[in-house]
Amino acid sequence: MTTILAVDCMGGDHGPRVTLPACRRFLDEHPDAELLLVGRAEDLQSFVHDRARVVPATEVVTMDDAVEVALRRKKDSSMRVALKQVRDGQAQAAVSAGNTGALMALARYLLKTVEGIDRPAIAYPMPNAKGGATTVLDLGANVDCTEHHLLQFAVMGSALVSALRNEEQPSVGLLNIGEEIIKGSEVIKRAGELLRAAARAGDLNFHGNVEGNDIFKGTTDIVVCDGFVGNVALKTSEGLASMIGGFLKEEFARTPLTRLAAVLAYPVLAAFKRRVDYRRYNGAALLGLRGLVFKSHGSADEFAFGQALNRAYDAARNQLLERVQTRIAHARPLLVGEVPAAGGGHQAEAAAAS
Amino acid sequence: MTTILAVDCMGGDHGPRVTLPACRRFLDEHPDAELLLVGRAEDLQSFVHDRARVVPATEVVTMDDAVEVALRRKKDSSMRVALKQVRDGQAQAAVSAGNTGALMALARYLLKTVEGIDRPAIAYPMPNAKGGATTVLDLGANVDCTEHHLLQFAVMGSALVSALRNEEQPSVGLLNIGEEIIKGSEVIKRAGELLRAAARAGDLNFHGNVEGNDIFKGTTDIVVCDGFVGNVALKTSEGLASMIGGFLKEEFARTPLTRLAAVLAYPVLAAFKRRVDYRRYNGAALLGLRGLVFKSHGSADEFAFGQALNRAYDAARNQLLERVQTRIAHARPLLVGEVPAAGGGHQAEAAAAS
Repeated sequence: MTTILAVDCMGGDHGPRVTLPACRRFLDEHPDAELLLVGRAEDLQSFVHDRARVVPATEVVTMDDAVEVALRRKKDSSMRVALKQVRDGQAQAAVSAGNTGALMALARYLLKTVEGIDRPAIAYPMPNAKGGATTVLDLGANVDCTEHHLLQFAVMGSALVSALRNEEQPSVGLLNIGEEIIKGSEVIKRAGELLRAAARAGDLNFHGNVEGNDIFKGTTDIVVCDGFVGNVALKTSEGLASMIGGFLKEEFARTPLTRLAAVLAYPVLAAFKRRVDYRRYNGAALLGLRGLVFKSHGSADEFAFGQALNRAYDAARNQLLERVQTRIAHARPLLVGEVPAAGGGHQAEAAAAS
Repeated sequence: MTTILAVDCMGGDHGPRVTLPACRRFLDEHPDAELLLVGRAEDLQSFVHDRARVVPATEVVTMDDAVEVALRRKKDSSMRVALKQVRDGQAQAAVSAGNTGALMALARYLLKTVEGIDRPAIAYPMPNAKGGATTVLDLGANVDCTEHHLLQFAVMGSALVSALRNEEQPSVGLLNIGEEIIKGSEVIKRAGELLRAAARAGDLNFHGNVEGNDIFKGTTDIVVCDGFVGNVALKTSEGLASMIGGFLKEEFARTPLTRLAAVLAYPVLAAFKRRVDYRRYNGAALLGLRGLVFKSHGSADEFAFGQALNRAYDAARNQLLERVQTRIAHARPLLVGEVPAAGGGHQAEAAAAS
């Protein structure tokens, strides 16, 4: 069966200069894949391949464009046209390195959410000490989440990991400030109750509370949190990794002697660098939509963007969409439940969209 | 002037085995300091010094003891007796490596909070790329904070940094998911308004929103967040640092050749290790109490525990308590929310600030 991806070739910091070479390599490596290259015809026409076709779009959503601009003004943007390919059944998944807020808003508008899901989430794989990745969600703009949103994230994250890693019941941890169930805010405590109920119903493999360090330990396959906390955890990690890398570089550059040591240690340092290379984990999933969308880092290079394409391809081939929908349908009674708390959610939602 | 510290010698993972040697070194290095060594007489009697005196306490709060046990049952614990020395004016600050929850609860019970402060906070110095430390608070158990609590943390953090680093107006960042003032949860947005009002009143040097990576960049001297987010950021960082350290060790241990490289690179790796050594930053301040209390990591070794003693000493000598009280008193109208919480012009203010 052919897998077709729609690629927003204009998105990201580098645009076609990075996306096109990544697309070519991807096609070489996946003989059963086809690509719809979306963007300005003049920028893409040089790309010739019998399994690729250019879908023209005259506009580009920039990294600085407000969500409103992407939604209401740039009606023929490459991002939007790529998503339309998914909506119209021309492609099984869309990939973009563009502006996250715009991508989420457009995807939500064009594809709509799956029944039972209030808010789509962004799931991001973070490397762990076990050599794999811990999938953390939400890393989108879902601040002020209720316990029902957290349960939805858990169900969607389970579907994602089961599709990408062939693991039927991946384990889920609830990010908290202690392992004991009495810990945390009121929302977190109620979320813990819901997750335990979901585990009893067979909808989830719930491990219990986890703490920040468990993300990198790899204690669970999935870590669930609201978008505020997830964003802080991700960016704090990026900041620390960058600081540690900088210190290491400075120390090895300090004197002629240390520079010699760097040469001698080069193979080790290169192997180390490969292991902590976040590019390997590029490709975040936008979950809860009626179509598959993957977001690449804006700064992705050819290798990293290729990883995002691979992830989208794997998700499409492993029926991620159907898996999410099946799981959501199964967990429906808990997801929508007695939901009194979702009542005040209008304002919160407006805030999340801004 | 003599500075007297009360030391809970029984707390932490190692107790007197670590605390006593650290106390001896501290006394050697500070000829104007005196120590009250609090704990079981039989464990401490071996320590003889003309500027140290044993204050007996028959019980020990363990790392696993519930807060209730520390508060209501172990009435003669070393932790409690150390705090009592501060309350009764026998010492200017107390230092403990014991159970954080118990220390906070006992400190709050025995010392009470400063007027204008609802909840004490824990301020923790995290190393940054500038070679200094970013003071992050709250890292205590203050989940579900209001904007007024966040403002209180900002005021207390400013007092702490000005006392320890001789910087009159240290800069304060509000931890958020983006720099723009429209970002974040409702509480965070209101906190931003309050902090801007405090800056206008001259109570704070407010830089604006910061993101997770700014903690390690050292963008601001102080980063303010609720205890949930702070705890996640701290533990995520600990997890990542430990993973990266583990990877580096593994790569250098892989083959005889890489082990040789490790020997050659040893001085560089040692210098690197010193730079990321969290022990240098040991000693978190419990702020907002009518007395100075410093918390050491439970796993602290002699060097790290000594750093906590140094910090308590510096805070006492630099009148941290008076500084906190002065600042709190000055910021009172904002702290208690008497000010028309930027009532007139949410939008006007947003426009002015942008």
